[in-house]
Amino acid sequence: MNDDVTELKRLVDMAAGREPADLLIVNAKVVDVFTGTVRESPVSVGRGRFLGFSHIPARETLDAGGAYLLPGLIDAHIHIESSMASPARFAELVLPCGTTTVIADPHEIANVFGADGIRYMLESGRDLPLDIRIALPSCVPAAPFEDAGAVLDAAALEAFIDDPRVSGIGEVMNFPGVIAGDPDMLTKILLGLRRNKAVDGHAPGVLGRDLDAYFVTGVSNNHEIATPEELEQNLQRGAYALLREGSAARDLAKLLPALGPAAFRRCAFCCDDRHPEDILRDGHIDNHLRQAVRLGVDPVQAVTMGTLNAAECFGLRRKGAVAPGRDADFVLVDDLHDFRPRRVYAAGRLVAEDGRVLVPLRDTPPARTEGSGRFDGGMRMAPLADDAFALRIPAGAARVIGIEPRSLVTRHEIRSVVTDGDGFFHCADNPGLCKIAVIERHRATGRLGVGLLSGYGIRGGAVATSIAHDSHNVVTAGDNDADMLLAVRALAEMDGGIVMVCGGTITGRLPLPVAGLLTTAPPAETGRTLGRMIAAAHADLAIPAEVEPFMTLSFMALPVIPSLKITARGLFDVERFAFVETAAEAPLPV
Amino acid sequence: MNDDVTELKRLVDMAAGREPADLLIVNAKVVDVFTGTVRESPVSVGRGRFLGFSHIPARETLDAGGAYLLPGLIDAHIHIESSMASPARFAELVLPCGTTTVIADPHEIANVFGADGIRYMLESGRDLPLDIRIALPSCVPAAPFEDAGAVLDAAALEAFIDDPRVSGIGEVMNFPGVIAGDPDMLTKILLGLRRNKAVDGHAPGVLGRDLDAYFVTGVSNNHEIATPEELEQNLQRGAYALLREGSAARDLAKLLPALGPAAFRRCAFCCDDRHPEDILRDGHIDNHLRQAVRLGVDPVQAVTMGTLNAAECFGLRRKGAVAPGRDADFVLVDDLHDFRPRRVYAAGRLVAEDGRVLVPLRDTPPARTEGSGRFDGGMRMAPLADDAFALRIPAGAARVIGIEPRSLVTRHEIRSVVTDGDGFFHCADNPGLCKIAVIERHRATGRLGVGLLSGYGIRGGAVATSIAHDSHNVVTAGDNDADMLLAVRALAEMDGGIVMVCGGTITGRLPLPVAGLLTTAPPAETGRTLGRMIAAAHADLAIPAEVEPFMTLSFMALPVIPSLKITARGLFDVERFAFVETAAEAPLPV
Repeated sequence: MNDDVTELKRLVDMAAGREPADLLIVNAKVVDVFTGTVRESPVSVGRGRFLGFSHIPARETLDAGGAYLLPGLIDAHIHIESSMASPARFAELVLPCGTTTVIADPHEIANVFGADGIRYMLESGRDLPLDIRIALPSCVPAAPFEDAGAVLDAAALEAFIDDPRVSGIGEVMNFPGVIAGDPDMLTKILLGLRRNKAVDGHAPGVLGRDLDAYFVTGVSNNHEIATPEELEQNLQRGAYALLREGSAARDLAKLLPALGPAAFRRCAFCCDDRHPEDILRDGHIDNHLRQAVRLGVDPVQAVTMGTLNAAECFGLRRKGAVAPGRDADFVLVDDLHDFRPRRVYAAGRLVAEDGRVLVPLRDTPPARTEGSGRFDGGMRMAPLADDAFALRIPAGAARVIGIEPRSLVTRHEIRSVVTDGDGFFHCADNPGLCKIAVIERHRATGRLGVGLLSGYGIRGGAVATSIAHDSHNVVTAGDNDADMLLAVRALAEMDGGIVMVCGGTITGRLPLPVAGLLTTAPPAETGRTLGRMIAAAHADLAIPAEVEPFMTLSFMALPVIPSLKITARGLFDVERFAFVETAAEAPLPV
Repeated sequence: MNDDVTELKRLVDMAAGREPADLLIVNAKVVDVFTGTVRESPVSVGRGRFLGFSHIPARETLDAGGAYLLPGLIDAHIHIESSMASPARFAELVLPCGTTTVIADPHEIANVFGADGIRYMLESGRDLPLDIRIALPSCVPAAPFEDAGAVLDAAALEAFIDDPRVSGIGEVMNFPGVIAGDPDMLTKILLGLRRNKAVDGHAPGVLGRDLDAYFVTGVSNNHEIATPEELEQNLQRGAYALLREGSAARDLAKLLPALGPAAFRRCAFCCDDRHPEDILRDGHIDNHLRQAVRLGVDPVQAVTMGTLNAAECFGLRRKGAVAPGRDADFVLVDDLHDFRPRRVYAAGRLVAEDGRVLVPLRDTPPARTEGSGRFDGGMRMAPLADDAFALRIPAGAARVIGIEPRSLVTRHEIRSVVTDGDGFFHCADNPGLCKIAVIERHRATGRLGVGLLSGYGIRGGAVATSIAHDSHNVVTAGDNDADMLLAVRALAEMDGGIVMVCGGTITGRLPLPVAGLLTTAPPAETGRTLGRMIAAAHADLAIPAEVEPFMTLSFMALPVIPSLKITARGLFDVERFAFVETAAEAPLPV
């Protein structure tokens, strides 16, 4: 007998009662996602798997005290990088929330480290009790003219596709490319389809014929659904709707009330992007369950969306339910409205209790195959000249990126500005405007774009961050060049993270030593530091309350979201899909 | 660009309206199995796939005249051999019923021809518009002591498992073996699991801890569910319930009323065994739809069970729904209660209309790798002595197989019998009893078992058939040795099929020239011949109306179903799981 057969035989022997099981849970109410019901039943566990529902001999018995027993929760689409946590630290964040499986798209770290970034996420998370499945980033870089750290073509992805922990192809966000029939995108999609793996979608606001063209390719799901109309059209086209409740986008309240009874099976839950402080405060997929029940969804249906449906979407036959042979990932909760996880089990092992992780969680990062061989911050900027951020606007009219609070979309403004005798712009002469700059940081090309920002409100200092979607170059904003220079230089010295400068003094530092995106520090500490820095940015730098100081900057460099953005190559007009000068001809006529 | 990319790009170009589609259907009501609703929408088709729901340019437009448009129906588990039809002739039977995909387990032909039998089914059906997926027979022979034509071990199955048309492992009917942890069964199960393919179940009447042990292995489904209690326990354990309505077993009326609303998604439809005359008269999966709606099931739910749910059970991502990218298999019907298929399309092509197939359907059998190189009737019997069926019962007491009308289960009777001076049994002296014999026919071993049958009622003749589950040796029954000999010799000469003899004359012949199980003759002709022979068996041979004359015999040799059966090695006591003598010690005390 080979090992697998021996292992399977042990399971059968345990389930049949010929060998003692590892664990028998009694006095539990099992949430049955297959029949949509709750029933009192013993549940047995052996070798990390559920064995069945019979009173069989077991080495250990657990009295659940009448608690509800749910399958472990599944996040159907998340970028772990948004939590700023390494895989182990992310596990520390979400295991206490009852999450035992995530489909993670390492799009951000791949933009910094390329294939090595994917390998980091795959290997670093391999031995964790959190089951991290990897969706291979399909759009690195996000746009062809971007200065990302890597270009991942289909051949690069192919090296990973057969790994059993790879769920398939990550969100195909170049939806215009797909709809236009771009062969590179289609090749990547086929790479997943041929293995019968999922190909994740990203199609915000796409409807009708364009949505037909997008899904005719075999893309499996969409997490960018924001309206009932989109929801209906996506479901009709056979896409799984991954209902999102992240730190920025919050879609449940818009979508769940519009969902017909038969369509629940086609919906799962995801966070997409969720910051550590939000997870610490409001939870993870357990938060979706609470929201859904508050919105009137039947609790068992809510659990089903957070478990079985996600497992089915990704073909994870051993996940998503309490049933013989499936992985014994489960959560004990006291009720089906608050869903507070009392105890969380992964593969049959108690891993978290009352919000605390009970097992050691260590990252086991591989060696890098490129560069230094280490997963450092990836900060490779050319030296910055003292006048790097000088901005000349000869005609006195400038394009300005207008921040829309709580939105990734910006306004494309054209404004009259006051300049000095040589035509240089100074914030002091232009209330309401500040400077923003993006500095290439992957291969020291020295590329640097400088522009103007309205609505950020910063006074008396600067902020710099190495998180800047999707290329993660350095972005800085401030009301004076000196503080901006100080912030960026401190950021380089720290090898990535977030730096805040107030009147010539560094007043806040969050180091993100992995790719300039992630930290291996305890999430609670990261959350506290970040919370303090956000408070200080509002208090000391006068950034308005409705503008999140760091995340807002991180999205100013994303040239695929309207209207005006900035990259290391300069200002980008998303509507015209072309670079433009900050110096404009003249203000728009009123 | 490689071919696949070019092909996919053409689909996208069509869906986006840049290239004309092949077909645009207007004025149809689309049954949407994702949202559980019906809506009026155009449906476009190109390159054999659905493109979408937009009015796009197309080379051909079809006005559906307000008909309902359903996804093509799926039979989740069938033995094509029960229809006595070759794959092409089976397609001729079921395409007009709206069936476009079947999961076929070639268990019967594999018992005759082994791996060649699997190859016959795979290759012969390759170019048909009916999509035949093959589940690899896991239990050949059905019992270790059986004289089947082949033994298929895990290595033999492994040769087929990666074929994309192989759905996985066929029904694991040796459920006692699985529950006992038999390594051979577990090895076969793992063969499917490792490829992420389905492993089909067969667990009649199994409950509780035994059912836990059965499903802990990863078996995916069960079509042997006969009671609401079994249904509930199977669903709870994560098994797909394949609800059966065949020629013998009819389970829908027992099960559908017991099904809770959330559990519908875990149920699909299957026939298991369905004879040609039943398909011709009552239909195939369309019959399930009619039955289900009559039993009160919502029509769209019924369609969903007959389409999407089966596709999901088997991981067929391109089947089971009308949605962009899926295979354009669909059916037009006038209403959602009769479900009479007006037109049936497979891969975008009109293949049947008003009960008639419109396209040529040809079997393309491969060459055999063994024996004659031909797929002949597989009749390899040793010559039969004239006294082959002589039966001596010295003590005047005999075990008798008691037929239970409309059941595969038999009674184990012990009866006093009258014998001649030499102790030989003659039917003429024993009203109500007849002889039954099973003759090994795969390798001319000369093995031959003779026994007694009650309830068959035959007078003045004999019947012989080469269909005898599961080993398909020859079985004959008659009230005199001469007619039995004549029937079996005629059967050998015909190279398999069914023969009926009345008073020394052959009065009926159904040749089954492939494996002694299948014919390539038109199904209507087969159905007519069979109908005439059944009528004659009742009229001329006095077989009671409640006993199907041929099928009844075919199951007398199946030694895994209680209580007393007969094989070429003699009488088999299923309860004791041991061979027994026909001559008994004495009748049971009354």
